[in-house]
Amino acid sequence: MEDRFLRYIPLFQGLPEEQVKRLAESGRYKNFKSGELIAGEEEKVKALFLVVWGKVKIFRGSEKEQTIYLFGPGELFCLTSLADEPFPASAMALDDTRVLVLPSDMLEDMAKREPSLLFNMLITLIRRLKESMHLIELLSLKEIPQRLASFLLHSLALQGGGDVLALTISQRELAKILGTTPETLSRVLKKMGSDGMIAVKGRSIRMRDRAALERLSEGTGYPHGSQQNILT
Amino acid sequence: MEDRFLRYIPLFQGLPEEQVKRLAESGRYKNFKSGELIAGEEEKVKALFLVVWGKVKIFRGSEKEQTIYLFGPGELFCLTSLADEPFPASAMALDDTRVLVLPSDMLEDMAKREPSLLFNMLITLIRRLKESMHLIELLSLKEIPQRLASFLLHSLALQGGGDVLALTISQRELAKILGTTPETLSRVLKKMGSDGMIAVKGRSIRMRDRAALERLSEGTGYPHGSQQNILT
Repeated sequence: MEDRFLRYIPLFQGLPEEQVKRLAESGRYKNFKSGELIAGEEEKVKALFLVVWGKVKIFRGSEKEQTIYLFGPGELFCLTSLADEPFPASAMALDDTRVLVLPSDMLEDMAKREPSLLFNMLITLIRRLKESMHLIELLSLKEIPQRLASFLLHSLALQGGGDVLALTISQRELAKILGTTPETLSRVLKKMGSDGMIAVKGRSIRMRDRAALERLSEGTGYPHGSQQNILT
Repeated sequence: MEDRFLRYIPLFQGLPEEQVKRLAESGRYKNFKSGELIAGEEEKVKALFLVVWGKVKIFRGSEKEQTIYLFGPGELFCLTSLADEPFPASAMALDDTRVLVLPSDMLEDMAKREPSLLFNMLITLIRRLKESMHLIELLSLKEIPQRLASFLLHSLALQGGGDVLALTISQRELAKILGTTPETLSRVLKKMGSDGMIAVKGRSIRMRDRAALERLSEGTGYPHGSQQNILT
């Protein structure tokens, strides 16, 4: 049964099985094709969305999209509907995606009676807030090589270390996280590659000179001085 | 008694008086001078801070500060300590400031037994997340006049409308929100003033041409075309 997967979601840990069942029964499953809009900015959505499979991009802006989050299986979004607020961003399927749509009033009722659910939601929000602070710092960096270095180091830390980052998104989508164009990102990747900082192979990026990346992300300068300006 | 003010904090609405009293007794008051650091980035703080009076700036980065939030009386920060996470930013007093330091384990205990407190915290976090999304969109705008227009319109909406924004911070601090230097901000303010968009008088900014500000913030261009590049 599809609903079984709900029991393995970190957000529902500690919740009595009875309640998990009720959750599953009150929700309805919905499929979206890659590129399809799930919810639009300022839309009054009265539901939370749980990703069953696929990938969802949360972004702001219309003329120029700025990606804020990427969500995968087991992740919940549109928590703002709990505060009766319109959706503060847009959500789009990046792959073919299946979501479970949970009515927010039902989830609010349940959360008020099940402190463990409420506490899990609080923890989820705290982690999201932390991620958004990282993105704010990244976007406050002026040069794209700096932003990319900061993104790479942060992503490696999130995946628990290692030297190789396997991107789950295209370079085009990565550009929308870094607040730049695909053309600039491609140029920056090439330059950082030929400078021996990274090695790019398809969607995998290997760090070759972590110290240089750290210096770059801290703003202590591109190791080759004035070339920084050529890149951006 | 100083603790009486706790009863009027939105976060503690719905909490039995007995619990509010316990909160007050378990906390300790601490004063900070303007410019003093309250908590540093990555510090393992085991407490939440409630602003009693004064003003607190939350920021990231050392070489280049990026302001993320400004908090005033009645606002709580360092909620990340509830998730046992180090403080993801730095907190600094912007005026002489008094805070109530509340141990996070005590607050966590209480929150788990008082769903109303937990729910109020959730709402607080949702609002903060929404604000951070606005800042992300603002920083994704390339030109400073665009960022300023977006900031002005958003701040007016937050204060519930009107045409005059009374800044509670200096232009120097405003520059740190907009991710620019005080010099650039001053130039942009002057230019937008002489173009008839705004009128700046000390810390008060009056909108003179809201339609132009909206066009600018939406990225449909500075009304005088190529002058946009001169400004940034």
